[in-house]
Amino acid sequence: MQHLRNTISNLRDEKPNIRIGFVPTMGFLHEGHASLLQAARQQCDIVVLSIFVNPLQFGPNEDFERYPRDEARDLALAKAAGTDIVFSPSTAEMYPRPSKTQILVSGVTERLCGASRPGHFDGVGIVVTKLFQIIQPDAAFFGMKDAQQVAVIKQLVTDLNMPVEIVPCAIIREQDGLAMSSRNVYLQPEEREQALVLSRTLKQVEQKVIEMGGNLPASELQQAIRKQIEEMPLADIDYVEILAYPDLEPIERMKDAKEAIIALAVRFGKTRLIDNVIIQLQE
Amino acid sequence: MQHLRNTISNLRDEKPNIRIGFVPTMGFLHEGHASLLQAARQQCDIVVLSIFVNPLQFGPNEDFERYPRDEARDLALAKAAGTDIVFSPSTAEMYPRPSKTQILVSGVTERLCGASRPGHFDGVGIVVTKLFQIIQPDAAFFGMKDAQQVAVIKQLVTDLNMPVEIVPCAIIREQDGLAMSSRNVYLQPEEREQALVLSRTLKQVEQKVIEMGGNLPASELQQAIRKQIEEMPLADIDYVEILAYPDLEPIERMKDAKEAIIALAVRFGKTRLIDNVIIQLQE
Repeated sequence: MQHLRNTISNLRDEKPNIRIGFVPTMGFLHEGHASLLQAARQQCDIVVLSIFVNPLQFGPNEDFERYPRDEARDLALAKAAGTDIVFSPSTAEMYPRPSKTQILVSGVTERLCGASRPGHFDGVGIVVTKLFQIIQPDAAFFGMKDAQQVAVIKQLVTDLNMPVEIVPCAIIREQDGLAMSSRNVYLQPEEREQALVLSRTLKQVEQKVIEMGGNLPASELQQAIRKQIEEMPLADIDYVEILAYPDLEPIERMKDAKEAIIALAVRFGKTRLIDNVIIQLQE
Repeated sequence: MQHLRNTISNLRDEKPNIRIGFVPTMGFLHEGHASLLQAARQQCDIVVLSIFVNPLQFGPNEDFERYPRDEARDLALAKAAGTDIVFSPSTAEMYPRPSKTQILVSGVTERLCGASRPGHFDGVGIVVTKLFQIIQPDAAFFGMKDAQQVAVIKQLVTDLNMPVEIVPCAIIREQDGLAMSSRNVYLQPEEREQALVLSRTLKQVEQKVIEMGGNLPASELQQAIRKQIEEMPLADIDYVEILAYPDLEPIERMKDAKEAIIALAVRFGKTRLIDNVIIQLQE
Protein backbone atom coordinates (compact mmCIF):
# COMPACT_ATOMS: atom_id res chain seq x y z
CA MET A 1 0.00 0.00 0.00
CA GLN A 2 2.84 2.38 0.86
CA HIS A 3 4.47 1.44 -2.44
CA LEU A 4 1.29 2.37 -4.30
CA ARG A 5 1.01 5.66 -2.39
CA ASN A 6 4.62 6.48 -3.31
CA THR A 7 4.09 5.61 -6.96
CA ILE A 8 1.04 7.88 -7.18
CA SER A 9 2.70 10.64 -5.19
CA ASN A 10 5.73 10.50 -7.54
CA LEU A 11 3.48 10.63 -10.59
CA ARG A 12 1.80 13.76 -9.20
CA ASP A 13 5.14 15.35 -8.35
CA GLU A 14 6.48 14.72 -11.85
CA LYS A 15 3.38 16.04 -13.59
CA PRO A 16 1.34 18.33 -11.33
CA ASN A 17 -1.82 18.46 -13.43
CA ILE A 18 -1.98 14.72 -13.99
CA ARG A 19 -5.48 13.20 -13.91
CA ILE A 20 -5.72 9.86 -12.17
CA GLY A 21 -8.65 7.61 -13.02
CA PHE A 22 -9.67 4.76 -10.74
CA VAL A 23 -11.72 1.64 -11.39
CA PRO A 24 -12.50 -0.27 -8.17
CA THR A 25 -13.51 -3.90 -8.78
CA MET A 26 -13.84 -7.25 -7.07
CA GLY A 27 -11.94 -8.89 -9.93
CA PHE A 28 -13.04 -11.71 -12.24
CA LEU A 29 -13.17 -8.99 -14.84
CA HIS A 30 -15.48 -9.02 -17.84
CA GLU A 31 -16.27 -6.62 -20.65
CA GLY A 32 -18.25 -4.43 -18.27
CA HIS A 33 -15.07 -3.79 -16.27
CA ALA A 34 -13.13 -3.38 -19.51
CA SER A 35 -15.53 -0.59 -20.53
CA LEU A 36 -14.82 1.20 -17.23
CA LEU A 37 -11.08 0.89 -17.79
CA GLN A 38 -11.48 2.18 -21.34
CA ALA A 39 -13.51 5.18 -20.14
CA ALA A 40 -10.81 5.91 -17.56
CA ARG A 41 -8.15 5.50 -20.25
CA GLN A 42 -9.91 8.06 -22.46
CA GLN A 43 -10.51 10.63 -19.72
CA CYS A 44 -7.38 10.31 -17.60
CA ASP A 45 -3.58 10.19 -17.79
CA ILE A 46 -3.15 7.29 -15.41
CA VAL A 47 -5.54 4.38 -14.93
CA VAL A 48 -5.54 2.57 -11.59
CA LEU A 49 -7.48 -0.68 -11.16
CA SER A 50 -8.14 -2.22 -7.77
CA ILE A 51 -9.05 -5.87 -7.32
CA PHE A 52 -10.36 -6.66 -3.87
CA VAL A 53 -13.16 -9.00 -2.90
CA ASN A 54 -14.34 -6.97 0.07
CA PRO A 55 -15.64 -9.29 2.81
CA LEU A 56 -17.51 -6.43 4.53
CA GLN A 57 -20.02 -6.07 1.69
CA PHE A 58 -21.09 -9.74 1.80
CA GLY A 59 -23.74 -10.94 4.22
CA PRO A 60 -23.12 -14.05 6.35
CA ASN A 61 -25.12 -16.26 3.96
CA GLU A 62 -23.82 -14.73 0.76
CA ASP A 63 -21.21 -15.90 -1.71
CA PHE A 64 -18.00 -14.34 -0.37
CA GLU A 65 -16.17 -17.67 -0.13
CA ARG A 66 -17.15 -18.89 -3.57
CA TYR A 67 -16.98 -15.50 -5.32
CA PRO A 68 -15.06 -16.23 -8.55
CA ARG A 69 -11.39 -15.24 -8.61
CA ASP A 70 -8.81 -15.43 -11.41
CA GLU A 71 -6.06 -12.90 -10.96
CA ALA A 72 -3.91 -14.04 -13.90
CA ARG A 73 -6.81 -13.60 -16.30
CA ASP A 74 -7.69 -10.26 -14.66
CA LEU A 75 -4.17 -8.93 -15.13
CA ALA A 76 -4.20 -9.85 -18.83
CA LEU A 77 -7.56 -8.14 -19.35
CA ALA A 78 -6.43 -5.10 -17.37
CA LYS A 79 -3.30 -4.80 -19.46
CA ALA A 80 -5.24 -5.12 -22.70
CA ALA A 81 -7.58 -2.34 -21.56
CA GLY A 82 -4.64 0.00 -20.91
CA THR A 83 -4.38 -0.14 -17.12
CA ASP A 84 -1.26 1.49 -15.68
CA ILE A 85 -1.41 0.35 -12.07
CA VAL A 86 -3.12 -2.64 -10.46
CA PHE A 87 -3.74 -2.60 -6.70
CA SER A 88 -4.82 -5.98 -5.33
CA PRO A 89 -4.44 -5.80 -1.57
CA SER A 90 -4.97 -8.70 0.82
CA THR A 91 -7.77 -8.57 3.37
CA ALA A 92 -5.14 -8.13 6.10
CA GLU A 93 -3.73 -5.13 4.27
CA MET A 94 -7.15 -3.50 3.91
CA TYR A 95 -8.37 -4.44 7.38
CA PRO A 96 -5.32 -5.01 9.63
CA ARG A 97 -7.76 -4.93 12.57
CA PRO A 98 -11.56 -4.70 12.62
CA SER A 99 -12.57 -1.16 11.66
CA LYS A 100 -13.97 0.79 14.59
CA THR A 101 -15.11 3.37 12.06
CA GLN A 102 -18.36 2.91 10.19
CA ILE A 103 -19.67 4.96 7.30
CA LEU A 104 -23.44 4.88 7.07
CA VAL A 105 -25.41 6.44 4.24
CA SER A 106 -29.14 6.77 4.89
CA GLY A 107 -31.99 7.37 2.45
CA VAL A 108 -30.56 5.90 -0.75
CA THR A 109 -29.64 2.65 1.04
CA GLU A 110 -33.05 1.78 2.40
CA ARG A 111 -34.61 0.10 -0.63
CA LEU A 112 -33.55 -2.38 -3.35
CA CYS A 113 -30.29 -4.15 -2.47
CA GLY A 114 -30.03 -2.07 0.71
CA ALA A 115 -33.18 -3.78 1.97
CA SER A 116 -32.41 -7.30 0.77
CA ARG A 117 -28.69 -7.25 1.65
CA PRO A 118 -28.49 -5.64 5.12
CA GLY A 119 -25.08 -4.10 5.76
CA HIS A 120 -24.06 -4.40 2.10
CA PHE A 121 -23.76 -0.67 1.47
CA ASP A 122 -22.01 -0.10 4.81
CA GLY A 123 -19.32 -2.43 3.48
CA VAL A 124 -19.29 -0.67 0.13
CA GLY A 125 -19.07 2.74 1.83
CA ILE A 126 -16.07 1.87 3.95
CA VAL A 127 -14.09 0.10 1.24
CA VAL A 128 -14.68 2.81 -1.36
CA THR A 129 -13.73 5.52 1.14
CA LYS A 130 -10.55 3.63 2.07
CA LEU A 131 -9.62 3.07 -1.58
CA PHE A 132 -10.27 6.73 -2.40
CA GLN A 133 -8.01 7.78 0.49
CA ILE A 134 -5.26 5.39 -0.56
CA ILE A 135 -5.35 6.17 -4.28
CA GLN A 136 -6.69 9.75 -4.21
CA PRO A 137 -8.08 9.58 -7.73
CA ASP A 138 -9.43 12.56 -9.62
CA ALA A 139 -12.17 10.42 -11.14
CA ALA A 140 -13.65 7.02 -10.31
CA PHE A 141 -15.61 4.88 -12.76
CA PHE A 142 -18.57 2.70 -11.76
CA GLY A 143 -20.91 0.55 -13.80
CA MET A 144 -24.60 1.39 -13.82
CA LYS A 145 -25.59 -2.24 -13.37
CA ASP A 146 -25.08 -1.38 -9.71
CA ALA A 147 -27.16 1.79 -10.05
CA GLN A 148 -27.87 1.96 -6.33
CA GLN A 149 -24.17 1.66 -5.57
CA VAL A 150 -23.54 4.66 -7.84
CA ALA A 151 -26.26 6.63 -6.00
CA VAL A 152 -24.78 5.69 -2.60
CA ILE A 153 -21.25 6.61 -3.60
CA LYS A 154 -22.33 9.91 -5.14
CA GLN A 155 -24.15 10.75 -1.91
CA LEU A 156 -21.11 9.80 0.19
CA VAL A 157 -18.71 11.81 -1.97
CA THR A 158 -20.99 14.88 -1.89
CA ASP A 159 -21.64 14.69 1.84
CA LEU A 160 -17.95 14.23 2.71
CA ASN A 161 -16.63 16.75 0.14
CA MET A 162 -14.37 14.12 -1.40
CA PRO A 163 -12.39 15.62 -4.27
CA VAL A 164 -13.25 12.89 -6.76
CA GLU A 165 -15.59 12.89 -9.74
CA ILE A 166 -17.88 9.87 -9.90
CA VAL A 167 -18.33 8.76 -13.51
CA PRO A 168 -21.24 6.34 -14.09
CA CYS A 169 -20.80 4.06 -17.13
CA ALA A 170 -23.50 2.27 -19.11
CA ILE A 171 -24.40 -1.37 -18.45
CA ILE A 172 -22.56 -3.72 -20.78
CA ARG A 173 -24.59 -6.72 -21.94
CA GLU A 174 -23.94 -10.06 -23.59
CA GLN A 175 -25.13 -10.30 -27.21
CA ASP A 176 -28.37 -11.89 -26.00
CA GLY A 177 -29.03 -9.08 -23.51
CA LEU A 178 -27.86 -10.58 -20.20
CA ALA A 179 -26.17 -7.85 -18.14
CA MET A 180 -22.51 -8.73 -17.66
CA SER A 181 -21.65 -9.85 -14.14
CA SER A 182 -18.88 -11.85 -12.55
CA ARG A 183 -21.64 -13.97 -11.05
CA ASN A 184 -22.94 -15.07 -14.47
CA VAL A 185 -20.42 -17.95 -14.37
CA TYR A 186 -22.46 -19.52 -11.59
CA LEU A 187 -25.47 -19.96 -13.90
CA GLN A 188 -26.41 -23.42 -15.14
CA PRO A 189 -27.34 -23.47 -18.86
CA GLU A 190 -31.07 -23.58 -18.20
CA GLU A 191 -30.84 -20.81 -15.58
CA ARG A 192 -28.79 -18.71 -18.00
CA GLU A 193 -31.47 -19.21 -20.69
CA GLN A 194 -34.33 -18.24 -18.40
CA ALA A 195 -32.38 -15.27 -16.98
CA LEU A 196 -32.78 -13.55 -20.34
CA VAL A 197 -36.29 -12.68 -19.18
CA LEU A 198 -34.77 -9.85 -17.11
CA SER A 199 -33.21 -7.77 -19.87
CA ARG A 200 -36.03 -8.69 -22.28
CA THR A 201 -38.71 -7.48 -19.87
CA LEU A 202 -36.83 -4.30 -18.96
CA LYS A 203 -36.42 -3.47 -22.63
CA GLN A 204 -40.09 -4.02 -23.41
CA VAL A 205 -41.19 -1.97 -20.45
CA GLU A 206 -38.83 0.86 -21.32
CA GLN A 207 -40.33 0.91 -24.83
CA LYS A 208 -43.86 0.91 -23.46
CA VAL A 209 -43.15 3.75 -21.02
CA ILE A 210 -41.61 5.89 -23.71
CA GLU A 211 -44.63 5.29 -25.97
CA MET A 212 -47.12 6.07 -23.22
CA GLY A 213 -45.35 9.26 -22.17
CA GLY A 214 -44.82 8.20 -18.57
CA ASN A 215 -48.46 8.36 -17.50
CA LEU A 216 -48.45 4.71 -16.44
CA PRO A 217 -48.81 4.07 -12.72
CA ALA A 218 -45.57 2.59 -11.37
CA SER A 219 -47.42 -0.08 -9.38
CA GLU A 220 -49.16 -1.40 -12.49
CA LEU A 221 -45.88 -1.62 -14.39
CA GLN A 222 -44.29 -3.34 -11.42
CA GLN A 223 -47.03 -5.97 -11.39
CA ALA A 224 -46.68 -6.54 -15.13
CA ILE A 225 -42.91 -7.04 -14.78
CA ARG A 226 -43.33 -9.47 -11.87
CA LYS A 227 -45.87 -11.45 -13.86
CA GLN A 228 -43.62 -11.70 -16.88
CA ILE A 229 -40.63 -12.83 -14.81
CA GLU A 230 -42.69 -15.33 -12.84
CA GLU A 231 -43.45 -17.13 -16.08
CA MET A 232 -39.92 -18.53 -15.84
CA PRO A 233 -40.10 -21.54 -13.52
CA LEU A 234 -36.53 -21.05 -12.24
CA ALA A 235 -36.96 -17.36 -11.44
CA ASP A 236 -37.31 -16.37 -7.78
CA ILE A 237 -37.92 -12.64 -7.45
CA ASP A 238 -36.09 -10.76 -4.71
CA TYR A 239 -37.45 -7.35 -5.73
CA VAL A 240 -38.92 -5.44 -8.65
CA GLU A 241 -39.12 -1.72 -7.89
CA ILE A 242 -39.73 1.51 -9.69
CA LEU A 243 -38.25 4.57 -7.98
CA ALA A 244 -36.96 8.06 -8.66
CA TYR A 245 -33.27 8.07 -9.49
CA PRO A 246 -30.84 8.83 -7.91
CA ASP A 247 -32.67 9.57 -4.64
CA LEU A 248 -34.52 6.22 -4.78
CA GLU A 249 -37.81 7.52 -3.43
CA PRO A 250 -41.12 5.90 -4.46
CA ILE A 251 -43.08 7.47 -7.32
CA GLU A 252 -46.68 7.03 -8.41
CA ARG A 253 -46.28 7.56 -12.12
CA MET A 254 -43.17 7.23 -14.22
CA LYS A 255 -43.10 10.92 -15.05
CA ASP A 256 -43.16 11.93 -11.36
CA ALA A 257 -39.38 11.84 -11.40
CA LYS A 258 -36.87 13.46 -13.72
CA GLU A 259 -35.29 10.05 -14.00
CA ALA A 260 -37.00 6.83 -12.95
CA ILE A 261 -35.24 3.52 -12.36
CA ILE A 262 -36.83 0.14 -12.88
CA ALA A 263 -34.61 -2.12 -10.82
CA LEU A 264 -34.84 -5.81 -10.15
CA ALA A 265 -33.05 -8.60 -8.36
CA VAL A 266 -33.98 -12.17 -9.20
CA ARG A 267 -32.51 -15.48 -8.13
CA PHE A 268 -31.96 -18.30 -10.62
CA GLY A 269 -30.91 -21.30 -8.60
CA LYS A 270 -28.21 -20.11 -6.22
CA THR A 271 -27.39 -17.09 -8.32
CA ARG A 272 -28.83 -13.67 -7.59
CA LEU A 273 -28.82 -11.38 -10.61
CA ILE A 274 -29.59 -7.67 -10.74
CA ASP A 275 -30.47 -5.50 -13.70
CA ASN A 276 -32.10 -2.12 -14.28
CA VAL A 277 -33.04 0.53 -16.74
CA ILE A 278 -33.19 4.27 -16.12
CA ILE A 279 -35.77 6.24 -18.04
CA GLN A 280 -35.77 10.01 -18.50
CA LEU A 281 -39.24 11.40 -18.97
CA GLN A 282 -39.46 14.99 -17.79
CA GLU A 283 -38.23 17.73 -20.12
CA MET B 1 -14.63 26.43 -0.83
CA GLN B 2 -13.75 26.02 -4.52
CA HIS B 3 -11.47 29.05 -4.18
CA LEU B 4 -9.66 27.38 -1.27
CA ARG B 5 -9.37 24.12 -3.21
CA ASN B 6 -7.87 26.00 -6.17
CA THR B 7 -5.42 27.88 -3.96
CA ILE B 8 -4.18 24.66 -2.37
CA SER B 9 -4.10 22.83 -5.67
CA ASN B 10 -2.01 25.66 -7.19
CA LEU B 11 0.39 25.61 -4.26
CA ARG B 12 0.89 21.87 -4.76
CA ASP B 13 1.34 22.31 -8.51
CA GLU B 14 3.96 25.02 -7.99
CA LYS B 15 5.91 23.10 -5.37
CA PRO B 16 5.23 19.35 -5.56
CA ASN B 17 6.75 18.37 -2.22
CA ILE B 18 5.06 21.11 -0.26
CA ARG B 19 3.87 20.15 3.22
CA ILE B 20 0.51 21.57 4.21
CA GLY B 21 -0.32 21.83 7.90
CA PHE B 22 -3.87 22.26 9.10
CA VAL B 23 -5.31 23.54 12.37
CA PRO B 24 -9.08 23.04 12.61
CA THR B 25 -10.72 25.26 15.25
CA MET B 26 -14.08 26.66 16.32
CA GLY B 27 -12.51 30.13 16.56
CA PHE B 28 -12.33 32.49 19.55
CA LEU B 29 -8.67 31.65 19.46
CA HIS B 30 -6.40 31.64 22.50
CA GLU B 31 -2.80 30.72 23.19
CA GLY B 32 -3.66 27.03 22.95
CA HIS B 33 -4.67 27.52 19.32
CA ALA B 34 -1.63 29.76 18.78
CA SER B 35 0.61 26.90 19.93
CA LEU B 36 -1.02 24.61 17.31
CA LEU B 37 -0.45 27.21 14.60
CA GLN B 38 3.16 27.62 15.72
CA ALA B 39 3.73 23.86 15.64
CA ALA B 40 2.26 23.76 12.13
CA ARG B 41 4.43 26.73 11.15
CA GLN B 42 7.55 24.90 12.34
CA GLN B 43 6.72 21.57 10.67
CA CYS B 44 5.05 22.67 7.43
CA ASP B 45 5.45 25.00 4.46
CA ILE B 46 1.89 26.24 4.45
CA VAL B 47 -0.36 26.68 7.47
CA VAL B 48 -4.13 26.51 7.00
CA LEU B 49 -6.47 27.48 9.83
CA SER B 50 -10.18 26.71 9.75
CA ILE B 51 -12.69 28.55 11.89
CA PHE B 52 -16.07 26.85 12.00
CA VAL B 53 -18.43 26.47 14.94
CA ASN B 54 -19.78 23.09 13.90
CA PRO B 55 -23.45 22.78 14.91
CA LEU B 56 -23.35 18.97 14.56
CA GLN B 57 -21.03 18.51 17.53
CA PHE B 58 -23.29 20.42 19.94
CA GLY B 59 -26.15 18.70 21.73
CA PRO B 60 -29.63 20.31 21.74
CA ASN B 61 -29.10 21.74 25.24
CA GLU B 62 -25.52 22.79 24.72
CA ASP B 63 -23.97 26.18 24.05
CA PHE B 64 -23.92 26.34 20.23
CA GLU B 65 -25.87 29.60 20.10
CA ARG B 66 -23.82 31.40 22.73
CA TYR B 67 -20.45 29.88 21.79
CA PRO B 68 -18.08 32.89 21.77
CA ARG B 69 -17.19 34.32 18.35
CA ASP B 70 -14.81 37.14 17.41
CA GLU B 71 -13.50 36.74 13.87
CA ALA B 72 -11.59 40.05 13.74
CA ARG B 73 -9.60 39.10 16.82
CA ASP B 74 -9.11 35.57 15.46
CA LEU B 75 -7.69 36.85 12.18
CA ALA B 76 -5.20 39.07 14.02
CA LEU B 77 -4.05 36.21 16.23
CA ALA B 78 -3.85 33.85 13.23
CA LYS B 79 -1.72 36.35 11.34
CA ALA B 80 0.59 36.86 14.31
CA ALA B 81 1.06 33.09 14.59
CA GLY B 82 2.10 32.85 10.93
CA THR B 83 -1.07 31.47 9.34
CA ASP B 84 -1.06 31.48 5.52
CA ILE B 85 -4.68 30.63 4.76
CA VAL B 86 -7.84 31.04 6.84
CA PHE B 87 -10.93 29.03 5.90
CA SER B 88 -14.07 30.18 7.72
CA PRO B 89 -17.01 28.63 5.90
CA SER B 90 -20.64 29.33 6.69
CA THR B 91 -22.88 26.55 7.98
CA ALA B 92 -24.66 26.54 4.58
CA GLU B 93 -21.34 26.04 2.83
CA MET B 94 -20.38 23.10 5.05
CA TYR B 95 -23.86 21.56 5.14
CA PRO B 96 -25.79 22.73 2.04
CA ARG B 97 -28.31 20.03 2.89
CA PRO B 98 -28.52 17.65 5.88
CA SER B 99 -25.80 15.03 5.55
CA LYS B 100 -27.18 11.59 4.72
CA THR B 101 -23.73 10.23 5.50
CA GLN B 102 -22.70 9.51 9.06
CA ILE B 103 -19.27 8.59 10.34
CA LEU B 104 -19.41 6.60 13.54
CA VAL B 105 -16.38 5.61 15.56
CA SER B 106 -17.01 2.97 18.21
CA GLY B 107 -14.89 1.98 21.21
CA VAL B 108 -13.02 5.22 21.90
CA THR B 109 -16.25 7.23 21.88
CA GLU B 110 -18.13 5.31 24.53
CA ARG B 111 -16.74 6.89 27.70
CA LEU B 112 -15.87 10.40 28.93
CA CYS B 113 -17.34 13.13 26.69
CA GLY B 114 -18.72 10.46 24.37
CA ALA B 115 -20.98 9.30 27.22
CA SER B 116 -21.94 12.73 28.54
CA ARG B 117 -22.35 14.42 25.15
CA PRO B 118 -24.26 11.90 22.97
CA GLY B 119 -23.61 12.50 19.27
CA HIS B 120 -20.73 14.88 19.96
CA PHE B 121 -18.06 12.71 18.35
CA ASP B 122 -20.32 11.88 15.39
CA GLY B 123 -20.37 15.61 14.71
CA VAL B 124 -16.61 15.85 15.19
CA GLY B 125 -16.03 12.87 12.89
CA ILE B 126 -18.02 14.25 10.01
CA VAL B 127 -16.67 17.79 10.19
CA VAL B 128 -13.05 16.69 10.49
CA THR B 129 -13.48 14.26 7.58
CA LYS B 130 -15.05 16.98 5.44
CA LEU B 131 -12.34 19.48 6.31
CA PHE B 132 -9.63 16.92 5.57
CA GLN B 133 -11.20 16.23 2.18
CA ILE B 134 -11.50 19.94 1.35
CA ILE B 135 -8.02 20.94 2.51
CA GLN B 136 -6.13 17.65 2.00
CA PRO B 137 -3.47 18.50 4.56
CA ASP B 138 -0.31 16.47 5.11
CA ALA B 139 -0.53 17.05 8.86
CA ALA B 140 -3.25 18.23 11.21
CA PHE B 141 -2.64 19.65 14.67
CA PHE B 142 -4.92 19.05 17.67
CA GLY B 143 -4.65 20.12 21.30
CA MET B 144 -4.46 17.42 23.96
CA LYS B 145 -6.98 19.21 26.17
CA ASP B 146 -9.43 17.30 23.97
CA ALA B 147 -7.51 14.05 24.43
CA GLN B 148 -10.51 11.91 23.54
CA GLN B 149 -11.01 13.90 20.35
CA VAL B 150 -7.39 13.16 19.40
CA ALA B 151 -7.98 9.44 20.06
CA VAL B 152 -11.18 9.45 17.97
CA ILE B 153 -9.56 11.27 15.05
CA LYS B 154 -6.51 9.01 15.11
CA GLN B 155 -8.81 5.99 15.00
CA LEU B 156 -10.81 7.46 12.11
CA VAL B 157 -7.72 8.37 10.12
CA THR B 158 -6.22 4.91 10.62
CA ASP B 159 -9.44 3.04 9.81
CA LEU B 160 -10.11 5.10 6.67
CA ASN B 161 -6.47 5.21 5.46
CA MET B 162 -6.53 8.99 5.35
CA PRO B 163 -3.18 10.32 4.17
CA VAL B 164 -2.76 12.81 7.01
CA GLU B 165 -0.51 12.77 10.05
CA ILE B 166 -2.29 13.65 13.29
CA VAL B 167 0.00 15.74 15.52
CA PRO B 168 -1.16 16.01 19.15
CA CYS B 169 0.07 19.15 20.93
CA ALA B 170 0.46 19.74 24.68
CA ILE B 171 -2.23 21.48 26.73
CA ILE B 172 -1.51 25.19 27.14
CA ARG B 173 -2.44 26.63 30.54
CA GLU B 174 -2.95 30.03 32.06
CA GLN B 175 -0.23 31.09 34.53
CA ASP B 176 -2.38 29.82 37.40
CA GLY B 177 -2.86 26.42 35.78
CA LEU B 178 -6.33 26.69 34.20
CA ALA B 179 -6.32 24.86 30.87
CA MET B 180 -6.93 27.34 28.07
CA SER B 181 -10.38 27.10 26.52
CA SER B 182 -12.61 29.40 24.50
CA ARG B 183 -15.27 28.64 27.10
CA ASN B 184 -13.21 30.15 29.95
CA VAL B 185 -14.71 33.57 29.10
CA TYR B 186 -18.05 32.29 30.40
CA LEU B 187 -16.65 31.88 33.94
CA GLN B 188 -17.70 34.30 36.66
CA PRO B 189 -14.76 35.42 38.87
CA GLU B 190 -15.65 33.07 41.70
CA GLU B 191 -16.17 30.13 39.32
CA ARG B 192 -12.84 30.87 37.66
CA GLU B 193 -11.14 30.87 41.08
CA GLN B 194 -12.67 27.56 42.13
CA ALA B 195 -11.99 26.00 38.72
CA LEU B 196 -8.30 26.01 39.57
CA VAL B 197 -9.01 22.90 41.63
CA LEU B 198 -8.97 20.90 38.37
CA SER B 199 -5.41 21.54 37.25
CA ARG B 200 -4.16 21.61 40.86
CA THR B 201 -5.67 18.20 41.62
CA LEU B 202 -4.45 16.65 38.36
CA LYS B 203 -0.93 17.92 39.05
CA GLN B 204 -0.90 16.54 42.61
CA VAL B 205 -2.25 13.18 41.49
CA GLU B 206 0.27 12.95 38.69
CA GLN B 207 3.06 13.59 41.19
CA LYS B 208 1.67 10.98 43.55
CA VAL B 209 1.34 8.34 40.84
CA ILE B 210 4.90 8.91 39.66
CA GLU B 211 6.17 8.57 43.25
CA MET B 212 4.17 5.41 43.91
CA GLY B 213 5.25 3.74 40.67
CA GLY B 214 1.76 3.22 39.35
CA ASN B 215 0.69 0.58 41.86
CA LEU B 216 -2.24 2.68 43.01
CA PRO B 217 -5.69 1.29 42.16
CA ALA B 218 -7.39 3.59 39.65
CA SER B 219 -10.68 3.51 41.58
CA GLU B 220 -9.01 4.80 44.75
CA LEU B 221 -7.37 7.64 42.89
CA GLN B 222 -10.62 8.47 41.18
CA GLN B 223 -12.38 8.74 44.55
CA ALA B 224 -9.62 10.94 45.95
CA ILE B 225 -9.90 13.28 42.94
CA ARG B 226 -13.69 13.49 43.21
CA LYS B 227 -13.40 14.30 46.92
CA GLN B 228 -10.90 17.06 46.33
CA ILE B 229 -13.02 18.64 43.58
CA GLU B 230 -16.21 18.37 45.60
CA GLU B 231 -14.65 20.60 48.24
CA MET B 232 -15.35 23.47 45.87
CA PRO B 233 -18.99 24.45 46.43
CA LEU B 234 -19.48 25.60 42.81
CA ALA B 235 -18.05 22.42 41.25
CA ASP B 236 -20.52 19.97 39.72
CA ILE B 237 -18.70 16.86 38.48
CA ASP B 238 -19.72 15.40 35.12
CA TYR B 239 -17.05 12.68 35.16
CA VAL B 240 -13.69 11.77 36.64
CA GLU B 241 -12.21 8.74 34.91
CA ILE B 242 -8.92 6.92 34.70
CA LEU B 243 -8.46 4.89 31.51
CA ALA B 244 -5.81 3.50 29.22
CA TYR B 245 -4.83 5.96 26.50
CA PRO B 246 -5.50 6.12 23.58
CA ASP B 247 -7.89 3.14 23.53
CA LEU B 248 -9.83 4.49 26.56
CA GLU B 249 -10.44 1.11 28.16
CA PRO B 250 -10.79 0.81 31.96
CA ILE B 251 -7.71 -0.17 33.99
CA GLU B 252 -7.34 -1.44 37.53
CA ARG B 253 -3.99 0.04 38.35
CA MET B 254 -2.23 2.95 36.76
CA LYS B 255 0.57 0.79 35.43
CA ASP B 256 -1.87 -1.56 33.65
CA ALA B 257 -1.59 0.67 30.60
CA LYS B 258 1.44 1.97 28.75
CA GLU B 259 -0.19 5.36 29.03
CA ALA B 260 -3.02 6.19 31.40
CA ILE B 261 -5.24 9.22 31.18
CA ILE B 262 -6.88 10.92 34.14
CA ALA B 263 -9.68 12.87 32.51
CA LEU B 264 -12.35 15.02 34.04
CA ALA B 265 -15.27 17.22 33.09
CA VAL B 266 -16.70 19.55 35.71
CA ARG B 267 -19.33 22.24 35.53
CA PHE B 268 -18.87 25.58 37.25
CA GLY B 269 -22.19 27.39 36.94
CA LYS B 270 -23.22 27.09 33.28
CA THR B 271 -19.70 26.37 32.12
CA ARG B 272 -18.46 22.84 31.54
CA LEU B 273 -14.69 22.54 31.69
CA ILE B 274 -12.52 19.57 30.77
CA ASP B 275 -8.94 18.83 31.68
CA ASN B 276 -6.67 15.80 31.76
CA VAL B 277 -3.21 14.47 32.35
CA ILE B 278 -1.60 11.52 30.61
CA ILE B 279 0.91 9.51 32.60
CA GLN B 280 3.43 7.09 31.14
CA LEU B 281 4.35 4.35 33.56
CA GLN B 282 5.41 1.21 31.74
CA GLU B 283 8.97 1.03 30.45
